[in-house]
Amino acid sequence: MKLSLAYLGPTGTNSETAALAYADWIYRHQPSTTITLCPYPSIALALRSVANGEIDRAIVPIENSIEGSVTVVLDTLWQSAIQVHQELTIPIFHGLLSYSPSLEQIETVYSHPQALAQCQKWLEKFLPQVQLIPTKSTTEGVKLLKQDQTAAAIASPKASELYQVPLLRSDIKDSRDNCTRFWIVSSHISDRGSHLALAFSLAQNAPGALVEALEIFAHRKINLSKIESRPTKRSLGEYVFFIDLEGNSHDPEITNALAELSSCTEVLKIFGNYNILDV
Amino acid sequence: MKLSLAYLGPTGTNSETAALAYADWIYRHQPSTTITLCPYPSIALALRSVANGEIDRAIVPIENSIEGSVTVVLDTLWQSAIQVHQELTIPIFHGLLSYSPSLEQIETVYSHPQALAQCQKWLEKFLPQVQLIPTKSTTEGVKLLKQDQTAAAIASPKASELYQVPLLRSDIKDSRDNCTRFWIVSSHISDRGSHLALAFSLAQNAPGALVEALEIFAHRKINLSKIESRPTKRSLGEYVFFIDLEGNSHDPEITNALAELSSCTEVLKIFGNYNILDV
Repeated sequence: MKLSLAYLGPTGTNSETAALAYADWIYRHQPSTTITLCPYPSIALALRSVANGEIDRAIVPIENSIEGSVTVVLDTLWQSAIQVHQELTIPIFHGLLSYSPSLEQIETVYSHPQALAQCQKWLEKFLPQVQLIPTKSTTEGVKLLKQDQTAAAIASPKASELYQVPLLRSDIKDSRDNCTRFWIVSSHISDRGSHLALAFSLAQNAPGALVEALEIFAHRKINLSKIESRPTKRSLGEYVFFIDLEGNSHDPEITNALAELSSCTEVLKIFGNYNILDV
Repeated sequence: MKLSLAYLGPTGTNSETAALAYADWIYRHQPSTTITLCPYPSIALALRSVANGEIDRAIVPIENSIEGSVTVVLDTLWQSAIQVHQELTIPIFHGLLSYSPSLEQIETVYSHPQALAQCQKWLEKFLPQVQLIPTKSTTEGVKLLKQDQTAAAIASPKASELYQVPLLRSDIKDSRDNCTRFWIVSSHISDRGSHLALAFSLAQNAPGALVEALEIFAHRKINLSKIESRPTKRSLGEYVFFIDLEGNSHDPEITNALAELSSCTEVLKIFGNYNILDV
């Protein structure tokens, strides 16, 4: 079987690392499947390629342990019919890449906003005066360096090899436990898996409306592994709540909980069942 | 009385519009007070100027109706001893500023990531091929234009006047109801107000741990106007929950609720009571 996989490119991004880890998992578990990697210039375009049937699957970051949810993915899931199939988590390594021999000469640091945020404390301590310039991906920052000795980019140590830019510092992230969850999504219904992703909006913001919805799970001892709110984009103070829970939508307890939930929510969307892959 | 007020500058940003609206409110209600506006290059630096006592107050965006929470503000509140005193909401207008006489010549669009996100659908429809370049503020994007006819910036119509750049399109935001909530913060305890802001982390992620905390408010019919989760930055899957509620921490019902809440949370931080200003 042939499978095309969209992700945020170009080569050297953390999304590419996740895509390669997923391809490796596929090779080990479904040796008859071959994967074609398809880099896209943005996460939104990678998701759209799946929604419009151009590409089979996409692998997109959903949440980082330091910077939190990747909101473009949540918003796109709410607005489209994409389904979540699998999840994997990869550790994130941020290095400082530069042609400069020392930190003293650096005046500008390029990187993706998530990477800049994940290294914020290190930057404040060691490069407090530099100008931080956000880029579309960590790789784009590396490409902007050219031969400029007054600039640096935050990117993976692998990007240092790929683009032949010296690694001035090898690990500058703020937290030792920096990792990112990725979801593998497609336009097909996702029936199987040990976890379930869903979201709902509430008809009114009465006291306890959200609690009423959450109690449906609590009474049944269903564990919510994540809850996140996003604006409905209609009016300030109206939210969509995103929930990840442990269980499958065909488990009788969860089927009942979802039926009850649909009666007290305005819109309820089930994003699908997914398994957590051990890569 | 003299009062210094920090905000995200330079002149022409939406934060400046909010700062001017606040200064105007102060002039009307406390005529003996004079406000000095102090622009800062980032929201984080504006908040830090208040935390270290350099500036009396800061006005910072907390939430936009389209793009959601401004996470740097939530994270800084959790990590520092800053208190929330007042809130105001202002409508947001995004124009397309350019020296180009038509859309056809535009190859690059500069703006703050929040503004790019708030105009995403308009950009996809009318300028699908352009390169979007994030900047530190909407104003910085305008300054980068120089005389380049192939570039445009998304900024307020006011920035068009201030920086003498023609307004090619006057309102390109995706949603009619685009507005941003701002908080006025200081390092002093905030005792008075009709609303209360707080956050807590939970000792364990047991089923229903969050529900148990939220039920404390639901049972007392205390209305939660906002709930938001952020990572603790310790470990993936551990969250801090931010809550805004209607009431004052000295109301007996709320005093009791907070006492009960402190016994079932790991860390509970009260950010203070605040009033919503009608500007």
